[in-house]
Amino acid sequence: MSLIVQKYGGSSVGDAEGVKRVARRVVDTQRAGHDVVVVVSAMGDTTDELLDLAGQITTAPPAREMDMLLTAGERISMALLAMAVTDLGAKAQSFTGSQAGLITDSLHGRARLVEVDPHRIRTSVDKGNIAIVAGFQGMSRTTNDITTLGRGGSDTTAVALAAALHADVCEIYTDVDGIYTADPRIVPNAQKIARISSEEMLEMAASGAKVLHLRSVEYARRFGLTLHVRSSFSHHEGTWVIPDPATAHDISEGITLEQPIISGVAHDRSEAKLTVVGVPDVPGKAARIFEVIAAAAVNIDMIVQNVSTTRGRTDISFTLGMSQGTTAVEALEAAQEEIGFESLSYDDSIGKLSLIGAAMRSNPGVSSQFFSALSQAGINIGMISTSEIRISVTTRADSLDDAVRAVHQAFGLDSETEATVYGGTGR
Amino acid sequence: MSLIVQKYGGSSVGDAEGVKRVARRVVDTQRAGHDVVVVVSAMGDTTDELLDLAGQITTAPPAREMDMLLTAGERISMALLAMAVTDLGAKAQSFTGSQAGLITDSLHGRARLVEVDPHRIRTSVDKGNIAIVAGFQGMSRTTNDITTLGRGGSDTTAVALAAALHADVCEIYTDVDGIYTADPRIVPNAQKIARISSEEMLEMAASGAKVLHLRSVEYARRFGLTLHVRSSFSHHEGTWVIPDPATAHDISEGITLEQPIISGVAHDRSEAKLTVVGVPDVPGKAARIFEVIAAAAVNIDMIVQNVSTTRGRTDISFTLGMSQGTTAVEALEAAQEEIGFESLSYDDSIGKLSLIGAAMRSNPGVSSQFFSALSQAGINIGMISTSEIRISVTTRADSLDDAVRAVHQAFGLDSETEATVYGGTGR
Repeated sequence: MSLIVQKYGGSSVGDAEGVKRVARRVVDTQRAGHDVVVVVSAMGDTTDELLDLAGQITTAPPAREMDMLLTAGERISMALLAMAVTDLGAKAQSFTGSQAGLITDSLHGRARLVEVDPHRIRTSVDKGNIAIVAGFQGMSRTTNDITTLGRGGSDTTAVALAAALHADVCEIYTDVDGIYTADPRIVPNAQKIARISSEEMLEMAASGAKVLHLRSVEYARRFGLTLHVRSSFSHHEGTWVIPDPATAHDISEGITLEQPIISGVAHDRSEAKLTVVGVPDVPGKAARIFEVIAAAAVNIDMIVQNVSTTRGRTDISFTLGMSQGTTAVEALEAAQEEIGFESLSYDDSIGKLSLIGAAMRSNPGVSSQFFSALSQAGINIGMISTSEIRISVTTRADSLDDAVRAVHQAFGLDSETEATVYGGTGR
Repeated sequence: MSLIVQKYGGSSVGDAEGVKRVARRVVDTQRAGHDVVVVVSAMGDTTDELLDLAGQITTAPPAREMDMLLTAGERISMALLAMAVTDLGAKAQSFTGSQAGLITDSLHGRARLVEVDPHRIRTSVDKGNIAIVAGFQGMSRTTNDITTLGRGGSDTTAVALAAALHADVCEIYTDVDGIYTADPRIVPNAQKIARISSEEMLEMAASGAKVLHLRSVEYARRFGLTLHVRSSFSHHEGTWVIPDPATAHDISEGITLEQPIISGVAHDRSEAKLTVVGVPDVPGKAARIFEVIAAAAVNIDMIVQNVSTTRGRTDISFTLGMSQGTTAVEALEAAQEEIGFESLSYDDSIGKLSLIGAAMRSNPGVSSQFFSALSQAGINIGMISTSEIRISVTTRADSLDDAVRAVHQAFGLDSETEATVYGGTGR
């Protein structure tokens, strides 16, 4: 008998009807002969409603209490789902994050898992129950306080539980049919990817693809877990995310030969560019800048150091999450005298486009084809960064969509038909 | 330094403004030099909304999952209250029932406390926090599942925590100014009771007075805890419920002399009368009837056995909660042949009126005055039952209000002014 972990996002359980629809899928899976563990997010708008309530109370809610508040959302959805499953004649028990053994550090609002002890879940499943677990939440090992895992937390819960329970597969149900070669809202002819290696999926997620959260892909890769990303609104096969690249290319006969060079095009509008202008061109200054940034807990992405000017000074640019812009600017301004740079220039009207594909390694022509496609579409390129299986560039924000479409078409990713888009978000 | 436990019901935290108002009271109490532990119910309509959601899913929700669902309500209110307290510059931490050490049996929906271990609350308070605890909920000792304490559960949480923490007083905040000599919605000139013994309060609560739940009064009495029932919408003194009757009459000089014979008039519309007609008048038949009733887990209140008729048969009537009527009828019908009674008669159009007063013991004239008042008002009396400090009668449901007013006036309980009524319910 196989064990399947299924994760349903907030849009899948948006209302009572959604909860009942998910219950039917879950029960069908058990009746097909599988053990089933379900991870569920808060219903539809619940999180926004709770945030709105908190906003009516204070502008500076303590993080511990915000976690206590938000975790009420999953408590509601998981209890209702357990009721709906029971109503269909199956047995179910719901569990909070702490009951399910999801032990975290104490960083409220963005806690990281430090241990998963799913013995209560195992016992419940062994007794014939469908175990329903609250996504997104855990309990701090040191304080015993309730924590939340931050954005994408429910995916992380599902993957971590699947790994700890040695599940055969972790199914991530969402409101789209799988991972697409580009965002179908921008490229209507984007194609669903049947199989992708977790290495490529990591690059896609890190480059802005929103369907799967980066952390959950990291977990799946580390624990050799297969993910199946699919829609809870249809019974179509979705996208299989396979941990070992070799397996990804061998999973069914013939696929190796037809495996495309390029997996897809990802984009990201959430970054800004910060340029430190006129940095004295002496050793140690760049290091000092990034020390200051790191001390402010700001994550940066692409880095470019421009050619030194004749003045003996250089400009250093990097991209960072827009939400951390103010923090980074303030940290650098405080260190301006010490570092000796002339000024800061902040630009939040940029977009980032990434082309991802494992086979890029052995296909040297990809870069030139990529830049030529952008050039023919009249797109100005800002910064460039590459990995073995990815090329990323920044563009002006208002030309990002055109850039995505141009690259998608140039690499032959367009399909004959348009993708179905359902809309919605999850956590 | 004294420790005060304050309990706020759902109507006190009906919306964000209510939460902020409660936060100011709580912070004021701490700034006046007290340690403060707060027990809070779910906000206003939250419980009804959650019940409605469950109703959309199933008509037979499992009790375990219903508890999981409903406890989301306090999680929201307590986190918001902690935020509001922090916003006023004080320190606060919220705790679920299980975090607060409220350990229960496993009877979902109506669990009973088996242990209270408030060490996390003690530690939090000792660090200068206002500890905010979810009312109504606990954790099963045997299954580690989340449980709820049933109706009035938040009062029970507050009293049990106050007892375990050796609090100086437990303040029960509600939407009325205290305990009244009768329900002010029926008797506009009812008076607030300044002091009442917990013995009398027990009889009041058991007879239908809704402000304090029976279980919480039992706890307070057992642990010698003083309760102060008051409104969260005003700063008036409320009603002090004093555990030892002697103390109740001595708490301030002069009060002993003026202590009224009668505390108040309570009424109850939630009961029905079931009559077992034509029971063979032989030993053991009555016992057998009540064995059947007990086996069906039906709680009964008043019992009357009518005079045996010449046929060698008798009628036995008793009152029971209306919600258990069907259960009781079905249980007795199943045993009709064995017991040999002729028929059952069920009447849910009755009301119950009770007159309560500790001094009744030494005032033999109370009964005659009571029945004479009812008679002069033209009220037909059904069943009668008495304790040392209470007389209860049933009336027709539609004459209950008149009966309450007649008795209230006859014992001189009417005040010169009308009471203020805010409305609302709690849990």
